[in-house]
Amino acid sequence: MGKVVSALSMSLDGFVADEHDGVAELIGWYQNGDVEITSADPRWTFHVTEASAVFLRAALAGVGALICGRRLFDLTNGWNGRHPAGCSIFVVSHSLPTGWPRDDVPVTFYPDAMAALDAAQAEAGDKTVAVSTPTITRQYLDAGLLDELTVSLVPVLLGEGTRFFGSLTVAPIRLTGPEVIEGRGVTHLTYRVLR
Amino acid sequence: MGKVVSALSMSLDGFVADEHDGVAELIGWYQNGDVEITSADPRWTFHVTEASAVFLRAALAGVGALICGRRLFDLTNGWNGRHPAGCSIFVVSHSLPTGWPRDDVPVTFYPDAMAALDAAQAEAGDKTVAVSTPTITRQYLDAGLLDELTVSLVPVLLGEGTRFFGSLTVAPIRLTGPEVIEGRGVTHLTYRVLR
Repeated sequence: MGKVVSALSMSLDGFVADEHDGVAELIGWYQNGDVEITSADPRWTFHVTEASAVFLRAALAGVGALICGRRLFDLTNGWNGRHPAGCSIFVVSHSLPTGWPRDDVPVTFYPDAMAALDAAQAEAGDKTVAVSTPTITRQYLDAGLLDELTVSLVPVLLGEGTRFFGSLTVAPIRLTGPEVIEGRGVTHLTYRVLR
Repeated sequence: MGKVVSALSMSLDGFVADEHDGVAELIGWYQNGDVEITSADPRWTFHVTEASAVFLRAALAGVGALICGRRLFDLTNGWNGRHPAGCSIFVVSHSLPTGWPRDDVPVTFYPDAMAALDAAQAEAGDKTVAVSTPTITRQYLDAGLLDELTVSLVPVLLGEGTRFFGSLTVAPIRLTGPEVIEGRGVTHLTYRVLR
């Protein structure tokens, strides 16, 4: 079975979005270099540094399924059914959004995070299950189900917003690593979760 | 005039102490290597990795004055008047602790963070003024008076405790860097604050 990995861009003070759900301060590194990286969605092409290209290519290629929460689904309109990593999308949501599910795109809905994980792992096989929502990350951390954390640490203090890590039930959680990739305007840090 | 630098060990989720003011999870890197580093206080000798030794020697040698708050002063009993960096200690406190100031050690008290900074900078000259307390760090960040942030990032999630960065009045605050030194059980990240 593949790894379960939560990967997000985070400010030095721990936020993955500002208080208006904005991420502009955090995603500059996707477009601050000369290396073009295409994605599974023709609308999304990244231009990153050599260092971040190593990180991003591996991340995009390794993902076999993506889990997100309803809020992120709504903010991205479900990536219109086509995530840049080219994988199926597993949404944790108590209700079905209007117009979903659709027959033409691989987006499915689950009432809780554990059901979504079961389905995502079945789909991903040996590839990585990527988790893109902080609250779901915390549920998997609390349940001992998360293998890795990848923090793309951005040199900014946002002061307020949505935290990557908050309200952990089980703590401390010890990690090993990180593997460090130094990009421009970002430091990619990959940790393994100790059980 | 020397730089004003705030330097602390921080968990990946942003805490510099747990909810009981404990720092055991955060300071293991001071004693997990073979390189002995003596300090100005004979009671404190560090054993660090080669990488962390480079970081720690520079940090200890560069400090010309240390600013802390009353809580940290009480927790350390004012380092008994002798900080490992061998510098004078400038304490922000509304009241004088019992038995202080003492004639035999260079510890002085100031009613607010700005008065402490003036005195510390006069003492430090071209050397660094180090700030060791999160609330004072935030006041200097808000006032545009902090030059650098050094985060010794430790691979643990504490869940609760004292945050390095919280309740910033002025945000976002953009940084450059970091300079990265990869230790064992710690990643030393030094950022410059953009004004």
